[in-house]
Amino acid sequence: MRYFLTGGAGFIGSNLVDRLLNNGDKVVIYDNFSTGLEYFLSNAKTSANLTLVQNDIGNLGELTDAMAGCDFVFHLAANADVRFGTEHPRKDLEQNTIATFNVLEAMRKNNIKKIAFSSTGSVYGEPEIFPTPENAPFPVQTSLYGASKLACEGLIEAYCEGFAFQSWIFRFVSILGERYTHGHVFDFYKKLLQNPDKLYVLGNGHQKKSYLYVQDCIDAMLLAIDQAQDKVNRFNLGTDEYCEVNDSIAWITEYLGLKPTLTYAGGERGWIGDSPFIFLDCSKIRGIGWVPKKTIRKGIIRTLEYLQKHRELLSII
Amino acid sequence: MRYFLTGGAGFIGSNLVDRLLNNGDKVVIYDNFSTGLEYFLSNAKTSANLTLVQNDIGNLGELTDAMAGCDFVFHLAANADVRFGTEHPRKDLEQNTIATFNVLEAMRKNNIKKIAFSSTGSVYGEPEIFPTPENAPFPVQTSLYGASKLACEGLIEAYCEGFAFQSWIFRFVSILGERYTHGHVFDFYKKLLQNPDKLYVLGNGHQKKSYLYVQDCIDAMLLAIDQAQDKVNRFNLGTDEYCEVNDSIAWITEYLGLKPTLTYAGGERGWIGDSPFIFLDCSKIRGIGWVPKKTIRKGIIRTLEYLQKHRELLSII
Repeated sequence: MRYFLTGGAGFIGSNLVDRLLNNGDKVVIYDNFSTGLEYFLSNAKTSANLTLVQNDIGNLGELTDAMAGCDFVFHLAANADVRFGTEHPRKDLEQNTIATFNVLEAMRKNNIKKIAFSSTGSVYGEPEIFPTPENAPFPVQTSLYGASKLACEGLIEAYCEGFAFQSWIFRFVSILGERYTHGHVFDFYKKLLQNPDKLYVLGNGHQKKSYLYVQDCIDAMLLAIDQAQDKVNRFNLGTDEYCEVNDSIAWITEYLGLKPTLTYAGGERGWIGDSPFIFLDCSKIRGIGWVPKKTIRKGIIRTLEYLQKHRELLSII
Repeated sequence: MRYFLTGGAGFIGSNLVDRLLNNGDKVVIYDNFSTGLEYFLSNAKTSANLTLVQNDIGNLGELTDAMAGCDFVFHLAANADVRFGTEHPRKDLEQNTIATFNVLEAMRKNNIKKIAFSSTGSVYGEPEIFPTPENAPFPVQTSLYGASKLACEGLIEAYCEGFAFQSWIFRFVSILGERYTHGHVFDFYKKLLQNPDKLYVLGNGHQKKSYLYVQDCIDAMLLAIDQAQDKVNRFNLGTDEYCEVNDSIAWITEYLGLKPTLTYAGGERGWIGDSPFIFLDCSKIRGIGWVPKKTIRKGIIRTLEYLQKHRELLSII
């Protein structure tokens, strides 16, 4: 198989690249390196099976050319900067919605019909049901990020109906693990390196969050693509547990051997549009035999271990 | 009140313009006349309370300028050409999704916070529940048109959360009545004028459809905007009945006094992405006191009466 990965130099993308290359597959990475890092591809780049294209999805001609000869597309590139959506609303539109349209058009021109897409539990807005299943009541969007990912899902589904595509749409909780260089674990680690005595926390610390370890996430995606053969296959991906931001702080500080004074910004949301609670019902993906191997706590510690081993990343990012 | 109407020269838009002007309100129409008609504004243009701006929503600067001083936006402009979505997928993206983004940005720059939006029952894809309520299970999109309208809904909702907007999102069945110059009544009427003896029907004639008379639709929108004061107000708009395409053909031919031979293209869909059955649960809008005044049959006949009286339209369109 020859896989095409948008965002293949990113956190999840580069881990998936390594896995696919290890499996003996051919991989084309298409990445503009706006957030992706060559650093993450140091192993991958030694493989003869890797083709690396540095370009932007906005360039439809180049995107189409780069995709030629591929069998399957993982569309992982996105503006994943959930938090600052209201500061630049155009970013989610361009880098998520319009970018996904371009990916679909490039596929159509190359007669590639299979796509896996990294969506988000944020598409459920503020759900009425916990844990939230894939067929939850028609949600109201509460963030520009979630709204743009929903727009992408809709486009992909319409291409499945209109152009006989087949899709696997994965609604992730927050993913963490090796190469996770944004989000709260990274932020807290960085802050604590600078000042081990104090930690400033957005929100009141009681925001409930779900996390999934990146290798568990990749296991789930590859299994679903192999096993689920509907026209449109939508899967929640998360663990069956959640934690509070305070739990996560306790695990991080315990691991680092620190006892910082905590200061809270207050409020039940970390920022406008922050979902106070994402907790997904993952019985559908479990139903085809997937079981996550790491708890949230183990995923967080694995992230910290990686950051400690690759401290030079702090100066790159 | 000073209302801003995108698509104010269109079928629903121009009827709403007349109503608002009759109520004594001020109206700014912003329309590129790609499908809207000056013909529909012959009465409205005599009013001193009307401002008519011929321009495209793609021009964000001009859109923003035109909106200055308005209190409320009806965003009705859209690519409503549901049927040929797969022939030009970019059209729904540009004229619906990106256009709606521009409207929201122009509102933000003008500090206008209230928007009513014409969405569609097509956002439910192929629902599992009939009649389909607003909080139906999270749907899978089956048309580029529906997907783009869903993208617009998501954007609007995210602006409500992120920028303290208030919105009224109306999911229409097909609307008909005076000035309805596309869709099946118009098509059948035109065909029968050319050849009263034969009628070629897409699909097998058993496609079930819901229709709502345009004045009933306007009543519902104005009532909802007055009565429903949530941050995001989503309403299905339709009658409590549906008909088969064959019923509609029988009413049309009976009214015209014709007995054409019917030929069917066959298949349970008129075209790829055509939804075989849209039937909306409208108990939410009925719950605030709205009752439609016309049945589907009466709406169809009113449409025919209008077309007969304005036969010159056939040469304009």
